[in-house]
Amino acid sequence: MPKYLEEFNPPIRLLLGPGPSNVNPRVLQAMSAPLLGHLDPDFLDIMDDVRDMLRIVFKTKNEITIPISGTGSAGMEAAIVNVIEPGDTMVVGINGYFGDRIAQIGERSGATVARVNAEWGLPLDPDKLNEELKKHKRVKAVAMVHAETSTGIRSPAKEITAIAHAHDALVIIDTVTSLGGIEVAMDDWDADVSYSGTQKCLGCPPGLSPVTFGPRAESVISNRKTPVQSWYLDTSLLKNYWSQNRAYHHTAPISMIYGLREGLRVVLEEGLDNRFSRHEYNAAALRKGIEAMGMEMFAQEDSRLPTLNTIRIPEGIDDAKVRRSLLTEHNIEIGGGLGPVAGKIWRIGLMGENSNKEAVVSVLSALEVVLNEQGAEMTPGTGASAAEAFYAS
Amino acid sequence: MPKYLEEFNPPIRLLLGPGPSNVNPRVLQAMSAPLLGHLDPDFLDIMDDVRDMLRIVFKTKNEITIPISGTGSAGMEAAIVNVIEPGDTMVVGINGYFGDRIAQIGERSGATVARVNAEWGLPLDPDKLNEELKKHKRVKAVAMVHAETSTGIRSPAKEITAIAHAHDALVIIDTVTSLGGIEVAMDDWDADVSYSGTQKCLGCPPGLSPVTFGPRAESVISNRKTPVQSWYLDTSLLKNYWSQNRAYHHTAPISMIYGLREGLRVVLEEGLDNRFSRHEYNAAALRKGIEAMGMEMFAQEDSRLPTLNTIRIPEGIDDAKVRRSLLTEHNIEIGGGLGPVAGKIWRIGLMGENSNKEAVVSVLSALEVVLNEQGAEMTPGTGASAAEAFYAS
Repeated sequence: MPKYLEEFNPPIRLLLGPGPSNVNPRVLQAMSAPLLGHLDPDFLDIMDDVRDMLRIVFKTKNEITIPISGTGSAGMEAAIVNVIEPGDTMVVGINGYFGDRIAQIGERSGATVARVNAEWGLPLDPDKLNEELKKHKRVKAVAMVHAETSTGIRSPAKEITAIAHAHDALVIIDTVTSLGGIEVAMDDWDADVSYSGTQKCLGCPPGLSPVTFGPRAESVISNRKTPVQSWYLDTSLLKNYWSQNRAYHHTAPISMIYGLREGLRVVLEEGLDNRFSRHEYNAAALRKGIEAMGMEMFAQEDSRLPTLNTIRIPEGIDDAKVRRSLLTEHNIEIGGGLGPVAGKIWRIGLMGENSNKEAVVSVLSALEVVLNEQGAEMTPGTGASAAEAFYAS
Repeated sequence: MPKYLEEFNPPIRLLLGPGPSNVNPRVLQAMSAPLLGHLDPDFLDIMDDVRDMLRIVFKTKNEITIPISGTGSAGMEAAIVNVIEPGDTMVVGINGYFGDRIAQIGERSGATVARVNAEWGLPLDPDKLNEELKKHKRVKAVAMVHAETSTGIRSPAKEITAIAHAHDALVIIDTVTSLGGIEVAMDDWDADVSYSGTQKCLGCPPGLSPVTFGPRAESVISNRKTPVQSWYLDTSLLKNYWSQNRAYHHTAPISMIYGLREGLRVVLEEGLDNRFSRHEYNAAALRKGIEAMGMEMFAQEDSRLPTLNTIRIPEGIDDAKVRRSLLTEHNIEIGGGLGPVAGKIWRIGLMGENSNKEAVVSVLSALEVVLNEQGAEMTPGTGASAAEAFYAS
């Protein structure tokens, strides 16, 4: 019998990498409901619910607040291609892997991209972005990553938005690793465009990308001289399906939308503030354990994300071996470094469902076992007990 | 309590529209399995299974045979943007709504598009395509819809492929409403590019688009002078994730891939030939019933699809009212017409799981009740008993 005909039986893992994270069983249950048609009045009600809840989570009144029918990278592309036309200038803040991806997509959209780099592990520098903006006559958009998944760094979204607007540029903000885990406040920031993913702090599987476009962005889009290069991601078509027009565009991924509705319900039942505190609290416990084990965090202290925690790999430790042992011996996934920090850092995500004490204690305990196997002498229980002490305090 | 916080409780419908169709419970069950990471070796094995089975279903050995992480329209866009560069010429056969969509996406990709129209309800005319090709010095691609979802028509894919190749053009074939329901034979046709959807004859939810690119298409792609305008849909990046390189591109929609693996298993357990016969058989029964009720099929007889059946709406009947009654009183969804045939035809999909006797008898019986309510005098049971007689014969 060919392998593909074998019964489906995936192992159960604790997903503490950069996402996906483990999904609330209620979300999986919702996804297994029988399907409705994509224009069924009952499905249209579900779409309205999703849109209403996404507005709460993004803290916005933006009309165009919808899930793109693709993963976070499709949302990134949607954010860019809708506002950028060939010949435009874009300024992109880059302090990690995903900032660089924005720049690449901007170039593929015909923009001239000015890259403003910051060291990986540090936040973006608003002053440097301001200096770059001064060099150009007209910048269409400034793009930045609020929460860099590759380094675990938070950058100042509100401050950078104000700078972009002072130069009459839109701001595009990647909130893939922040939305639902740390505060994203589109209207308070006065930000224009944002995109996220469902598989991180929203506690759903990957496959949808919540996006929001504010009034300035809508005005830029309606004044375009050329059509949006992507038909699939064109918000002027998408909004006709998601608004009361209900004009057919593409067939929505019904089951994923079911899951997102349930995931957003779970988020709102907990409450955003409670959720943000929980993410901070468990990340603090993880850091206590890591430091007790004699290791160092990578991201700059005042800008560390609670959702994605980066740790310097100790000298003499084999990165790949550690992660493989964690996965195969302990059923725990953590992430390795990307690009210039490959082999130098580990990334431990504590996102959505997985921001909890059991996950923190399990990963610290397993990491200690694996490191000891590699000859890093640690007193057994050091990390986990430091975390336990933090929780008890 | 706001409506969005209410418990999730969608109604159960028989989905006999143009898709989605009802999904095998095994597929929904697979989708509710706990998630793996997108680079977990166990998930990579699942990707291999999906790729192997897609090759069987497309009847191809093509290396690039993968599901795009978006719906069928994303697959359409992927098929076009990977091979088309600004300034290229494309010839598009149009005999319905989806042929026109191809032309629109071609234009957004920078192509000059020559539209070769056929009447809605008729197949594409290979001679007319050949005449058009003769007018151009160099055509990059000919695109066609194998199974037009808007009209229920099958067009001659193998013949049109040969014509395209005689003019040194690639052929791009939309198999959204054929793959898994009627034969698609990429290698036998010698075709270059195809895309499909999961929510029709493959019996999965919408959200993924299986695509395949053959050697001629790969060669065109590797000789491009400009980057593919879409980063998300760029097959030269996607193939590095789906091949043994396993290079991270985007986060795959894990649960949807689980569902597709199970859906393809169901397809292969039945066997493609059995599946094609089943689709023909149930569509024949439906037609017997429709004709017994005094109604006429819309699509030209020798080119009718068994997967999507189009019926002329009788004089004096209110299209919207009929479909609304079917949905709300009988929990059956059928499709209305699009574009020039809006209000003139109904579309009854018998795809995947839903190509069965119960669906045929239920829709005929319910349609008769609803038509009688509108004053179309029919002897009760005419349609359903004609279908029953066909099944008994």
